Amino acid sequence: MAKNEYDLIVIGGGPGGYTSAIRAAQKGLKTVLVERQFLGGTCLNRGCVPTKTILEDTLTIAAVRNSPFLKGDMKINFRRIMERKQMVIEGSRAGITGVLKGNGVEIMAGEARFTGPRSLEVKTPEGNREEISAGRIIIATGARVDYGPGLVVDEKCILSTDGALALKSVPQTVAVVGAGNRGVEFASIFNNLGVRVVVIEKEKRILPKEHRWLSGRYRKILSDRRVKVLTRTNLLAANPADGDGVILTLETGKGREEVKVGKVILTVSRVPSYKGLDLDTAGLSLTKDGLEYGPGMQTQVEGIYVVGDAAGAPYLAHKAIAQGIAAVDHILGLNPDGPLGVIPNCVYGDPEIGSVGLTDTQAKKRGYKVKMGEFYFVGNGRAGTMGKDEGLILIVSEAETGAVLGVHIMGPRATELISLGVMAIQNGLDIDRIKKTVLPHLTFSESFFEAALATSGEAIHQVQESGEDEHQA
Amino acid sequence: MAKNEYDLIVIGGGPGGYTSAIRAAQKGLKTVLVERQFLGGTCLNRGCVPTKTILEDTLTIAAVRNSPFLKGDMKINFRRIMERKQMVIEGSRAGITGVLKGNGVEIMAGEARFTGPRSLEVKTPEGNREEISAGRIIIATGARVDYGPGLVVDEKCILSTDGALALKSVPQTVAVVGAGNRGVEFASIFNNLGVRVVVIEKEKRILPKEHRWLSGRYRKILSDRRVKVLTRTNLLAANPADGDGVILTLETGKGREEVKVGKVILTVSRVPSYKGLDLDTAGLSLTKDGLEYGPGMQTQVEGIYVVGDAAGAPYLAHKAIAQGIAAVDHILGLNPDGPLGVIPNCVYGDPEIGSVGLTDTQAKKRGYKVKMGEFYFVGNGRAGTMGKDEGLILIVSEAETGAVLGVHIMGPRATELISLGVMAIQNGLDIDRIKKTVLPHLTFSESFFEAALATSGEAIHQVQESGEDEHQA
Repeated sequence: MAKNEYDLIVIGGGPGGYTSAIRAAQKGLKTVLVERQFLGGTCLNRGCVPTKTILEDTLTIAAVRNSPFLKGDMKINFRRIMERKQMVIEGSRAGITGVLKGNGVEIMAGEARFTGPRSLEVKTPEGNREEISAGRIIIATGARVDYGPGLVVDEKCILSTDGALALKSVPQTVAVVGAGNRGVEFASIFNNLGVRVVVIEKEKRILPKEHRWLSGRYRKILSDRRVKVLTRTNLLAANPADGDGVILTLETGKGREEVKVGKVILTVSRVPSYKGLDLDTAGLSLTKDGLEYGPGMQTQVEGIYVVGDAAGAPYLAHKAIAQGIAAVDHILGLNPDGPLGVIPNCVYGDPEIGSVGLTDTQAKKRGYKVKMGEFYFVGNGRAGTMGKDEGLILIVSEAETGAVLGVHIMGPRATELISLGVMAIQNGLDIDRIKKTVLPHLTFSESFFEAALATSGEAIHQVQESGEDEHQA
Repeated sequence: MAKNEYDLIVIGGGPGGYTSAIRAAQKGLKTVLVERQFLGGTCLNRGCVPTKTILEDTLTIAAVRNSPFLKGDMKINFRRIMERKQMVIEGSRAGITGVLKGNGVEIMAGEARFTGPRSLEVKTPEGNREEISAGRIIIATGARVDYGPGLVVDEKCILSTDGALALKSVPQTVAVVGAGNRGVEFASIFNNLGVRVVVIEKEKRILPKEHRWLSGRYRKILSDRRVKVLTRTNLLAANPADGDGVILTLETGKGREEVKVGKVILTVSRVPSYKGLDLDTAGLSLTKDGLEYGPGMQTQVEGIYVVGDAAGAPYLAHKAIAQGIAAVDHILGLNPDGPLGVIPNCVYGDPEIGSVGLTDTQAKKRGYKVKMGEFYFVGNGRAGTMGKDEGLILIVSEAETGAVLGVHIMGPRATELISLGVMAIQNGLDIDRIKKTVLPHLTFSESFFEAALATSGEAIHQVQESGEDEHQA
């Protein structure tokens, strides 16, 4: 094979892209990965990794603040928090470089542009142009943010999430616009840092994709921690104030209102990004949601695949990883039409949320007769030892068969615990199977077992009247 | 039914006992639970709950000590830690009382003694004697510690774990005797508190029941934190020193040695306890391991059952809970011969360990051809964000079928993560099934998926040569 000819070209080095490239190389394909900036994509450089790193440090700060057993005067060195964040990013990037190279993937820095359905031109950082070609191409170019009209990010007072992750000092007040996963995460981070936080959400509730009931409890928790939560509120404009800070123009049910804050962080929606790719040249055309794909993530042009954020919502790294594996398996003729597994969603605030599958309302709309199993962490021993008992586990199951339709968890470790729900749904483990599984005592996990028992009024560490569902979602 | 006549009498209010009683009452049996001291048993009053509560606080202390971003002078108020521990115990006891009563279980305080195979005399704290009888009786009287010769606990310098949980101040040096689960937990607690700790273990390695390799790594972690670990070392005697502290006489491979420490904590083995029960009167006889039982935890006397620590090793609350449910289901004629589910083991030190099923060595001894899947937390993004990447997941599977035989996890959240292994083994999910399950990104859980991939050399976030097992256990 000629030097510039490959079995597979992967465009984009985020989780979807690097997973595709690593798996392809493991399976013996000559593979090149083209990345125009940093390996690791949004997740590693601008998303999960930096936010969770900062959140982790602020959880220690909150633990110290709330501790009855630590006395003294503690000062937060915010620069050190940001330094650690940067070190973790750089370490993770080095790790991704290592696994790519260790698996035999060639890494090419530069911007890729289609010159045909099997070929690309790569403009390197030095300004050179290289032509590469391959039998298969995977597009993993990620997503970009989509600010609405009236909002111009200046990264001084009006911040993108990138700007928020690059702050040099702790502001006194912060408005977080959008109360989805990332909005709630930033609200938790700044609240832990002792900042006055207001959350602005246009929907009627925060975390609008989560179970209504978890969302309501989450709002109460934020409010109890003095985070101000405004729902059914639109941000019309954000303008730098005279001197310092920013004036927000809000539209609420009661009319317009102006609010001044130190910084505003826009955690807005994303759309797939194919910047500079010249999709036409490859014979690809866009719908309003981006590139369409069929089995194995193949686009309408045979041999060209799309994975990860570039393939549209949900914008989740584990979905990207699963799609990357599916695309390569399709290329290899393995499991060509297998559906992706069920995809969980995680909120890494304080507390966490993990969810997978349907809510009871969604299940009923689809015609299921539903049973609910609810277990509250007030009855969980591990929660007691941590002094964090505000969470719960909901299992939505089909009344007759006991098939698990959805699992919704709020509380410490919820992003880990949800994997139990994923395992159950993905592998068809019904309520009876979960009841027969011995999960270890003093863990949050055992509440998953208790929630299964609660489906039929049999929970041990919780008094309940019956297995009927009392709460609507 | 007469006032003192019941469908079921449960003797002992620990996890095995209260679970039995609650389940029986839920199923309509007139049930009384007799407890001579505190509801909740060893786990709640003297075991998991207090140790995890204290450990949790000391983890915050260690996080502050190791934090690069918190500056200042922090003092530990140890009394507050112990107060919180006591509050959590009392809150949990109240919770157990609540679920027992809420489910309609009658609680009787006092010491029970068999007067026949269906009847007991209960001596109440006031000195009254009441006769009660029932068609079925469950013995859930727990276990007691078994100090060897030469060791007399004075709870001043020579402490039981009870004494260690009741300390009024932080000692300067502590020797922990026994490096099983509880030994390692106490070592972690005191190490986090800044105490100089020496761990004394008679076996050739610490955590002798855990996978050899995890045990080796754990020892290194303890040593790195300046915990002194002595293996193949027997404690021959512990004698109060003149003035203060205690002199330990140790027998090592090199002979005898004396060591002086502030306090010594004996975390020794347990044996079933049937104190004061007069088992003979009920027609029960003891073997050297305690009461024998058959399907559904029934003893050799029909209608008398034994569950929890009273039924022997392993001394684990979740095993007691599972046995309690099994006994009641046997009484009700439900699932009368069903085996218990697989039982995980948890070490709540810092880091944690969770394990279930066989090690590779054990599996090979049983004639399995084994494949190993190993994933190291250095490749896990969540570990990076926490700065805690010393852990790993090992999956032991059958080479041909992919059946999961054992899972061994060390690291943050390992006691939660092991539930994924339990789910897999209990429900026959093989390596291929785990590979197709999408576990969420930025969690430790996804390393379970990666370890499954690693079984066939397909891990994404880790370079590996092949799927062959390189490490023996």
